[in-house]
Amino acid sequence: MNDPYPHNNTKIALIGGGTGSFTLLSALKNYSNSIAALVNMADDGGSTGVLRDELGTLPPGDVRQCLVALSDSPKLRDLFDYRFSEGTFRGHAFGNILLSALEKATGSFSEAVETAAEILRINGVVVPATLDNARLKMEWPGASVILQGERVIDAGYFANDPRKAHLSLVPEAKANPMAIEAIGRADMIVIAPGDLYTSLGPLLAVNGIGDALRRAKALKIYVCNLVTKQGQTEGFNVTDHADEIERLAGGSFLDYVLYNSQVPGKRLAERYQGEGAFMVERGRRRKTSYICIGGEFLGTIAEKSASDILPVTRSLIRHDPAAIAKSLMELYQYAA
Amino acid sequence: MNDPYPHNNTKIALIGGGTGSFTLLSALKNYSNSIAALVNMADDGGSTGVLRDELGTLPPGDVRQCLVALSDSPKLRDLFDYRFSEGTFRGHAFGNILLSALEKATGSFSEAVETAAEILRINGVVVPATLDNARLKMEWPGASVILQGERVIDAGYFANDPRKAHLSLVPEAKANPMAIEAIGRADMIVIAPGDLYTSLGPLLAVNGIGDALRRAKALKIYVCNLVTKQGQTEGFNVTDHADEIERLAGGSFLDYVLYNSQVPGKRLAERYQGEGAFMVERGRRRKTSYICIGGEFLGTIAEKSASDILPVTRSLIRHDPAAIAKSLMELYQYAA
Repeated sequence: MNDPYPHNNTKIALIGGGTGSFTLLSALKNYSNSIAALVNMADDGGSTGVLRDELGTLPPGDVRQCLVALSDSPKLRDLFDYRFSEGTFRGHAFGNILLSALEKATGSFSEAVETAAEILRINGVVVPATLDNARLKMEWPGASVILQGERVIDAGYFANDPRKAHLSLVPEAKANPMAIEAIGRADMIVIAPGDLYTSLGPLLAVNGIGDALRRAKALKIYVCNLVTKQGQTEGFNVTDHADEIERLAGGSFLDYVLYNSQVPGKRLAERYQGEGAFMVERGRRRKTSYICIGGEFLGTIAEKSASDILPVTRSLIRHDPAAIAKSLMELYQYAA
Repeated sequence: MNDPYPHNNTKIALIGGGTGSFTLLSALKNYSNSIAALVNMADDGGSTGVLRDELGTLPPGDVRQCLVALSDSPKLRDLFDYRFSEGTFRGHAFGNILLSALEKATGSFSEAVETAAEILRINGVVVPATLDNARLKMEWPGASVILQGERVIDAGYFANDPRKAHLSLVPEAKANPMAIEAIGRADMIVIAPGDLYTSLGPLLAVNGIGDALRRAKALKIYVCNLVTKQGQTEGFNVTDHADEIERLAGGSFLDYVLYNSQVPGKRLAERYQGEGAFMVERGRRRKTSYICIGGEFLGTIAEKSASDILPVTRSLIRHDPAAIAKSLMELYQYAA
């Protein structure tokens, strides 16, 4: 590997939660030993939702994925992502059970994450955005419709413009001090691609995160989503996405936006369109406080190494995490 | 500590499964860095039984206890012994779920135990006596009664003399090669105190274990049970116990039997007698192929450090594991 930036000490804070974080972390860890993955804590679906409901624990799913991404032990990665397919535990990922058991045994989710990180021998840290047990709420000023819960909002087909919606956590959630510290210490802050209203939004809605992002001295880059989401971000172009990220964070803070400018194969694009998902277009150029940079960031279907262990129901158009990580590091070198 | 045998290299093979193994291991590990704990694999009750039935995995419970006993990390010990008290996972010990998930993920119980041992950073090894998935059967020649399953036998009140019973595994279980190796390599083999027909018996019934014990060059010591078991070993004295151990192993092999000669407080003894359990007496002296040695091996109720994490329903008359471990090492020094 003749890459010019092997294992440097650039302090990276990655903001996200789901698949986007996972794939990007898997690639970024080749460039830095000092990554803090900040994780959305409003998830209430699937295995995570059941554990929250039954045990009263904080949501483990996205934390598990980030821990796994930063672990170098294939055996333990497989264990943490193992999903029971029968019996009482059917559908539960083992790592979720572990995090919940640790939280119950120690009384602290923070300690649970730390211990799990030790077991997995991860490089870097995984930081829950908040340690408050809160659920997501989406509402529109003047409208009677209120959507409650991330799972519900995720499945929603919005009747009103989401860009006018107010996203909040109930009860109010304050930022985990470790998250604020990670943002403050970072050299580069990366907003991972992810669902605006059910992954990035709930993280940015945590009290104190937006302010910390605006105060931070780091270079701040948003890696824009590849495809739009039916009934939610239909027709959104690159700057629409970036503007929403800033609005949800309570104000402007981005320096750069990386977006994909590569056109996918016809068959793949059509398959997505069948699900109401379209490639995010660059759109009409207009004045923005951030700089948009396009690149060839499309992964091929065959390139699924990093996402092998994700549920197979997920989509097949993916970022090429290696290409994005390389571009991020180049941009950092250039801008620094 | 002015003990004359700190961390030596005596290779110890401990044979057992339940509480007796756990407490003895916790004490023996202060004397040796080279302990192999051989574990009974016929357990089919409680959390372990549910996992066996639902997932088709091998029984994790006793393996978990031995792993925990050999771990030096209080945090991970607590995690492995954490028992869910609510929801889907109610009653399950976390370590049991971990071992079953590992077995499902890797396809090998052996690898599961090894990985769990790495996670817990144990000193020594834990070795399942067999890797065959078998259940315990107890029958009397000429009698129609057949007891099937360890849980059933454990609860049994035997109508016939158990000393005439045949104990077997169904289907036939062959010894784990690692168990045979551990017995062959050992300097000292210790049979831990435990239920004759539902803990030690099923381990000794594994094909090849008895022969390996007779062939082994090690010093072989049985630590005799403290109390009799109602409806099962009523009236058994020390040599009755030791003789049964040898019969269940298919023939004579013991060099020494360590037994408790200390008399418990009246109140405690009475409490036990209420449950049909009586202190095991030395009994009438008679010629045996092994030597019986008595000692003050009674732990006090207050001394419950080693067994704190065991279910609270277990009995309160306990061996003093430190006193036994010390005597075992002294005996080894003396006899070697």
